[in-house]
Amino acid sequence: MEQEEAVAQPDVESQLTYRIERPVYDEDFIRTKLLHQKEHSTTLRQRLAQKLRCSPGKAKAAALRFLPILTWLPAYPVREYLFSDVVSGLSTGVVQLPQGLAYAMLAAVPPVYGLYSSFYPVMLYTFFGTSRHISIGTFAVISLMIGGVAVREAPDSMFYVASANGTNASAAAAAVLDVAARDARRVQVAVVLTTLVGIIQFVLGILRFGFVAIYLTEPLVRGFTTAAAVHVVVSQLKYLLGVKTQRFSGPLSVIYSVKAVLSDITSTNVSTLILGLICIVFLYAVKDMNERFKKKLPIPIPGEIIVVIVSTGISFGMSLSSGYRVDVVGTIPTGLLPPALPEFSLLPSLITDSFAVAIVGFSMGISLSKIFALKHGYSVDGNQELIALGLCNFVSSFFQTFAITCSMSRSLVQESTGGKTQIAGLLSSLVVLLVVVAIGFVFEPLPQTALASIIMVNLVGMFKQFRDIPALWRTSKIELAIWLVAFVASVLLGLDYGLLVAVTFALLTVIYRTQSPKSAVMGHVPGTALYCDVDEFEEAAEYEGIKIFHSNSSIYFANSDLYVKALMEKTGVDPERLQAARKAQKKRRDKANGAGQNPPHKMCVKFNKEGVTHEVLADVAAEDEQRNGRLEERLEEALVSEPPGAVHSVVLDWTSVCFVDSVGAKAVKQVIREHAAVDVQVVIAGCNRSVLSELDTLQFFTKDVTPAMLFPTVHDAVLSCQHSRRAAQASTSEAASCTDDT
Amino acid sequence: MEQEEAVAQPDVESQLTYRIERPVYDEDFIRTKLLHQKEHSTTLRQRLAQKLRCSPGKAKAAALRFLPILTWLPAYPVREYLFSDVVSGLSTGVVQLPQGLAYAMLAAVPPVYGLYSSFYPVMLYTFFGTSRHISIGTFAVISLMIGGVAVREAPDSMFYVASANGTNASAAAAAVLDVAARDARRVQVAVVLTTLVGIIQFVLGILRFGFVAIYLTEPLVRGFTTAAAVHVVVSQLKYLLGVKTQRFSGPLSVIYSVKAVLSDITSTNVSTLILGLICIVFLYAVKDMNERFKKKLPIPIPGEIIVVIVSTGISFGMSLSSGYRVDVVGTIPTGLLPPALPEFSLLPSLITDSFAVAIVGFSMGISLSKIFALKHGYSVDGNQELIALGLCNFVSSFFQTFAITCSMSRSLVQESTGGKTQIAGLLSSLVVLLVVVAIGFVFEPLPQTALASIIMVNLVGMFKQFRDIPALWRTSKIELAIWLVAFVASVLLGLDYGLLVAVTFALLTVIYRTQSPKSAVMGHVPGTALYCDVDEFEEAAEYEGIKIFHSNSSIYFANSDLYVKALMEKTGVDPERLQAARKAQKKRRDKANGAGQNPPHKMCVKFNKEGVTHEVLADVAAEDEQRNGRLEERLEEALVSEPPGAVHSVVLDWTSVCFVDSVGAKAVKQVIREHAAVDVQVVIAGCNRSVLSELDTLQFFTKDVTPAMLFPTVHDAVLSCQHSRRAAQASTSEAASCTDDT
Repeated sequence: MEQEEAVAQPDVESQLTYRIERPVYDEDFIRTKLLHQKEHSTTLRQRLAQKLRCSPGKAKAAALRFLPILTWLPAYPVREYLFSDVVSGLSTGVVQLPQGLAYAMLAAVPPVYGLYSSFYPVMLYTFFGTSRHISIGTFAVISLMIGGVAVREAPDSMFYVASANGTNASAAAAAVLDVAARDARRVQVAVVLTTLVGIIQFVLGILRFGFVAIYLTEPLVRGFTTAAAVHVVVSQLKYLLGVKTQRFSGPLSVIYSVKAVLSDITSTNVSTLILGLICIVFLYAVKDMNERFKKKLPIPIPGEIIVVIVSTGISFGMSLSSGYRVDVVGTIPTGLLPPALPEFSLLPSLITDSFAVAIVGFSMGISLSKIFALKHGYSVDGNQELIALGLCNFVSSFFQTFAITCSMSRSLVQESTGGKTQIAGLLSSLVVLLVVVAIGFVFEPLPQTALASIIMVNLVGMFKQFRDIPALWRTSKIELAIWLVAFVASVLLGLDYGLLVAVTFALLTVIYRTQSPKSAVMGHVPGTALYCDVDEFEEAAEYEGIKIFHSNSSIYFANSDLYVKALMEKTGVDPERLQAARKAQKKRRDKANGAGQNPPHKMCVKFNKEGVTHEVLADVAAEDEQRNGRLEERLEEALVSEPPGAVHSVVLDWTSVCFVDSVGAKAVKQVIREHAAVDVQVVIAGCNRSVLSELDTLQFFTKDVTPAMLFPTVHDAVLSCQHSRRAAQASTSEAASCTDDT
Repeated sequence: MEQEEAVAQPDVESQLTYRIERPVYDEDFIRTKLLHQKEHSTTLRQRLAQKLRCSPGKAKAAALRFLPILTWLPAYPVREYLFSDVVSGLSTGVVQLPQGLAYAMLAAVPPVYGLYSSFYPVMLYTFFGTSRHISIGTFAVISLMIGGVAVREAPDSMFYVASANGTNASAAAAAVLDVAARDARRVQVAVVLTTLVGIIQFVLGILRFGFVAIYLTEPLVRGFTTAAAVHVVVSQLKYLLGVKTQRFSGPLSVIYSVKAVLSDITSTNVSTLILGLICIVFLYAVKDMNERFKKKLPIPIPGEIIVVIVSTGISFGMSLSSGYRVDVVGTIPTGLLPPALPEFSLLPSLITDSFAVAIVGFSMGISLSKIFALKHGYSVDGNQELIALGLCNFVSSFFQTFAITCSMSRSLVQESTGGKTQIAGLLSSLVVLLVVVAIGFVFEPLPQTALASIIMVNLVGMFKQFRDIPALWRTSKIELAIWLVAFVASVLLGLDYGLLVAVTFALLTVIYRTQSPKSAVMGHVPGTALYCDVDEFEEAAEYEGIKIFHSNSSIYFANSDLYVKALMEKTGVDPERLQAARKAQKKRRDKANGAGQNPPHKMCVKFNKEGVTHEVLADVAAEDEQRNGRLEERLEEALVSEPPGAVHSVVLDWTSVCFVDSVGAKAVKQVIREHAAVDVQVVIAGCNRSVLSELDTLQFFTKDVTPAMLFPTVHDAVLSCQHSRRAAQASTSEAASCTDDT
């Protein structure tokens, strides 16, 4: 420690100085003299045992982690928190209600199931959730994904029944859609999908797989949700216009839907359209006011519930349904359904979809909870969130709900109205319960177009994500590509395949980055031991005969060829060509010498041309030694094949190398050998110790590739190359002088 | 330059010394004072124009590159090379012949098509190929892949015809396999597949996409070819045993095939089996002798042609076909077929398969040519090889051939018998031509079991690849996983899907590597400016209050969360928890103080406990200042929430970071901010300049994250942290003394 203090602690008052004076190290020295590995007394078995050991403390902590309510409820400060929680809970409940009704339409199930989904899981989350501010419940993107699956599994075409009791003769031929049977089937699909989503989320949570959400990088999620918004708007167009078209699912469903609506646009119900547009304008105005007067309003204006109540009133008062043929919500049964087993026979065809829903749902939830946790200074547990969501979905699905996660807009309401804990969420679910068991029937005359307008206005925020495109263009082309691929694939192929394509593409960009690294020849910034790109910086100066090659990536199978190619291009040393030229030359010489039986021996010759010292190592038949005239000629030949400005050392700067695989190691070994064959020394610098141990297991070091070729820093390598070069020159000039003597 | 010379050129005689003395730099200083960017006068447009410019020289070079024969033939040294080329060509031709017949069986087409495939493409390669030593022609793996497709597209079940003229009443019900129609169809499939393979290879070559082969990393190719060997052996079992079973294709075909053969094993033809086993033993012995007496034998013993000739003779002499019901090759039409257009209507269903065949074929070819090129000191052009293979396949397919590449065993014969140029390949094709047009019918009595034994013995080398497993276990578990996945997937799913799965898996391992980097807390090796893992090396010593965190990977969306997590684990600083504890504490205090209307003001207190100096920054309400007793209590509280051994600076060692994306940059920014909020300084060290410019475009630097937080080396960062710490302590002790005064 004393030694280091002297070096690392210059006087505080004076200018801070970086001062190092030490011998030049190579890896050989470091291994044998400088560093000593610590002995680790704990074996793998011991560490494993320690990890798996069970204690009462651990068990209690695990229980508390599983049921977070046990931690926070006993310490709940009633006087302080309760009032805010009640206000926030009621406000959120008032938003849950219309959103539940509206998103049920997206999920292709009758509205009352949206209310169930806004009650059971919301209540359950109170017990298992770790986030205090997010509002669990129906969410547009998830609902739409469920709707897509429900429509695919129970398409309209399955439920046409011949209308047997038609009085008209022609009607007997026409088939009638059995809406009740279709909806019952779609509910079954949605419910069993939700069960599966719950199981997947729960299992992933137990297995501590919360990290899967990281594959959904931000540009991907934003492109994906923008695409979801496009899907939602397209799916709501028909409700807004009052046009009756089929609902499509699967690839290109957006195009089919738009086409169907456009081809039926003449049958637009004007009353429906006007009512919808009024609702949209009103909701947008309220949203804008809430935003603008955020600070002045005690609670946000509940625009959605106003729209629901007023439009229900108008619809009832003016008999819009019967008088103007405006589509209304229709039957809302009062009370809850008894628990029932989901229809598990439907499971097999839903597995892929449920993975998509489970992961999208979780990633929406976790990203929002992290934002709030950060803002309010507590932490959320990703894996517990996954377990909580899984339990909410799984248990609730027995009560006929569809999959939920948290919704951005509702969570903002809950937080901004002063919600402090999960109690607010619980209260909001009770508001929904009240409606379901007591006054649900009141909403029966509610026009569907009002719900469509609620959905659409809620999506305005998502469409704002189009602004990402110019921003990403400026910051990162690769991330822009991810955004666009996620968007285009999700719009065209549907949300499930779109997500798969987007994730695959995002992962391939990582491969691409390693394959197109920035490589450069580095030069020394005088007096600093820092090296940087000679093409880019004026101060970087190359040393004569030494090329320092830096490539900004690891070296492994997918880029080792490219690495070697870039190396040869940048340094200008192509050993294969040099070697070939030498062989050709040797053959020509052998031919000239007839049979050329005499064994060639090596001779070093120094040579001066255009102020640069070239050195040529020529294989010369022994008999030739006397004929000095022909020797000159041969040297001339050798010079033609050698590149000018003779590089004698190549330093591979490996500071950026994170890992090397066997293909990469072989490629580098090959490079070292090939260069050695044409008398160019290749050394490696700045290799970190975990790559070094990888090289050891890959048996990289052999007789001709030794640890003495590795240096801890580029500067060490350069100093050593200069030194060995000077030593070689000294002995060469001796050899040359002895040649001259003959 | 002078300045640097002084530093970098110590006296050659003395011990080599690394000596640096300079101010501590941060990125701010580097940008403004140390480095200046060079101005690049060439714009993108200019560079593009330069690249696309056309000149007569360039055109000539392109022409020569496209037709390499124009380069080497005019310079062909007839006297020297011709004799060796003739010997080698004849020897190779003698191997081409039986292999052509045998591999046609694998490709599920009649034997004569194997001969066509051993003639046309081999001849064409002479003109377009750049490798002088590889022997183009039929190859087991490719033939098997073609066979799989042919069987899938034209299964036996398609060609059962009711035997109308059956005299037996029960035979009228039984269907008879129309072998001629089936084989004709299979030839069509194989031919059009070959056309497509040729087009794909040619287009990839023109587009300079030769690099696609790099995705086939060595362990993958070895696992894959071992699996192919398993497929081949299984497919040949029935010929060896003389059992008549159906040929299967697609996933699990290996299992079905084995099952079919085993269930029919009682019908084994003993004569066939004995003949086959004798051939196998003989061929294996010859192979062994060739290996053992490599140096003494002038040319390798042509075991295969001996087997073909002798077994044909025996079969003819003993009438094995009619007398012992041994299956023989059957009709071999004499002469060549006129060119015909492939059946393009079959194309759509073959696209995936042809990509697989094209890429596998090319990667086999290029890897072998590279080995020979290296050995004999010339170079091959990957893209030209791709073009050559593409043309060979495409043009030949009009003459009814199936896809080819080079075969390892045959190439070794060609090279070891002294082949010097592509002339040897040309001659070998002429040998085949001679047989086709003159004496093809001679081989009609050749037993199929002899061909099966030739195929099997040729595969012995591939089965030796099982030895990779223990070797890879020792060197690299990840590469072992790639080998095993490639093998198992290719055996079970078939070669096409197997290859796809294997490539996907190999690419995912790269992602995995970036997600499971080795992270460590680094310590200084005294006096060296080198830093290494404190857990691993005895010499590495940490500085008090400074944690240096190194992670061996880039920071991007798929690992930024893991990076942050590892950082907090390793350094032991969890700002979120610290912050939460502080907030909770503040609230408790506010509560204790009643309404707590007085604005809190900051106060610094220094504190000594257990020999370690803790510093606590406590927010204290102004009115509290007088009550010293309660102050002590509060400090006690604060100490509980602060971790012991107070870390004041965290250095992120970014020497291994190759790229950063927006998610990574945001995560790091967040880390810096969170730590700053709890008074821990986070700085970044050793970031390379291309990552720096990425950070710039990602708008990483803002008011609170400045370039002054970046240092060129870890040592610079450590020195600077120590300095700023000492400065802070000096001002703190002043503040503390003023606090004590009150």
